[in-house]
Amino acid sequence: MTANPTAAVLVIGNEVLSGRTQDTNSNAIARFLAPLGVTLKEVRVVGDFEEAIVEALNALRARFDYVFTTGGIGPTHDDITADAVAKAFGVGIDFHPEALALLAARFADPNDFNSARRRMARIPDGASLIRNPVSAAPGFQIGNVFVLAGVPSIMRAMLEDIAPRLTRGRPVLSITVAAQVAEGAIAGPLAAIQARFPDIAIGSYPVYRSDGYGVQLVARGFEPAQVETVAAELTAMLQAAGGQPERLSP
Amino acid sequence: MTANPTAAVLVIGNEVLSGRTQDTNSNAIARFLAPLGVTLKEVRVVGDFEEAIVEALNALRARFDYVFTTGGIGPTHDDITADAVAKAFGVGIDFHPEALALLAARFADPNDFNSARRRMARIPDGASLIRNPVSAAPGFQIGNVFVLAGVPSIMRAMLEDIAPRLTRGRPVLSITVAAQVAEGAIAGPLAAIQARFPDIAIGSYPVYRSDGYGVQLVARGFEPAQVETVAAELTAMLQAAGGQPERLSP
Repeated sequence: MTANPTAAVLVIGNEVLSGRTQDTNSNAIARFLAPLGVTLKEVRVVGDFEEAIVEALNALRARFDYVFTTGGIGPTHDDITADAVAKAFGVGIDFHPEALALLAARFADPNDFNSARRRMARIPDGASLIRNPVSAAPGFQIGNVFVLAGVPSIMRAMLEDIAPRLTRGRPVLSITVAAQVAEGAIAGPLAAIQARFPDIAIGSYPVYRSDGYGVQLVARGFEPAQVETVAAELTAMLQAAGGQPERLSP
Repeated sequence: MTANPTAAVLVIGNEVLSGRTQDTNSNAIARFLAPLGVTLKEVRVVGDFEEAIVEALNALRARFDYVFTTGGIGPTHDDITADAVAKAFGVGIDFHPEALALLAARFADPNDFNSARRRMARIPDGASLIRNPVSAAPGFQIGNVFVLAGVPSIMRAMLEDIAPRLTRGRPVLSITVAAQVAEGAIAGPLAAIQARFPDIAIGSYPVYRSDGYGVQLVARGFEPAQVETVAAELTAMLQAAGGQPERLSP
């Protein structure tokens, strides 16, 4: 299951590490990539520190086909992502004419288009812009790195401009079967099914709720027929263990 | 603000990278560590692959004072964290008498205490157990690494057993001031305040909602009086920009 293009997400922001903000961007990117057949292999979260950003970015971009960063491209002093990305790539950074024009169009009153907002038009040399239909200030792509906003609604909107730029792989199909059976009771037969279908990744996720415990078994793979076969085996196995398995929508 | 003990979280699980599961454990750990004065510096998410776990764990445990892993310590074939941690530390792994006793007490019927559940008592050599008051199967500590469950309710319960083991630092105090002012309009004066208070980390977070836009400014630091002073300056600055600032509960 690894011939697909690979990707990593680098979340940039003190607010995530302090616990103030629950990151949801990496989950949104994971869900965006799955149907495109791009496999998310790693997520990292670092703070607003240039050294940490540069080091993480260089590690990830060397290892994976694509890297998506989120956060730190706004107008304030703590927005240092563009400079850190330029440093990671060893290139200069300057005002980008098209980015300036996009921002100037948004701020009709020249008094509103102050130096802080102009700063959002500083783009590393050689990068191409990523369209921001929400608040104009663009993201950018440099090499295999896509630099996106941290505000979730803007980040998601930027993904639409990225999809056509990605080499796609085979989407992974997934079927989930759930039952009120203890994970530990079916671990043996589950491992036996996994051993017979090495091309299917079977995940087992226990559920603890006020109405009792249960398990969700997830079969993931490229071949629809094979995923269906495994789902049927999982269903039969859960039934044999005394459960009333049901298939969950993915 | 970096004399405090440092920490990283390593989230282990294909379900997070596939987008199926929104990780909330790293946020819970961030909120657990903040009042203890332990600074979370990095989060990584990797899949259920031994090589990826070993490499990430060795990188993080060498760099930070504490590492917290979540996920992969259950009874099924995809639970490979304990073995990966043993490999990362270069130690053996075997059944731990106390862990076996804890699990045996939970599964009164010997037929229920099958080999898969016994597997949860396999603990790397030299590790100490972390109590699991929810479902008995313990986590463990080895060196500066705390290996926790992935199920959020169990993970959080395990944190209670960890708190007394951590060297504490100075807790960071945080005050948030919000107003319906555009971030770009106050970036200049905001940077001037930041420049005058280098010991306070000021974060600026734009808000986009159906009822308009706004900004939340967060002042974080060790000295209560200084954080209050900065919060007062931020409030005055937002007022001068035409906003009606309000202090948010942290």
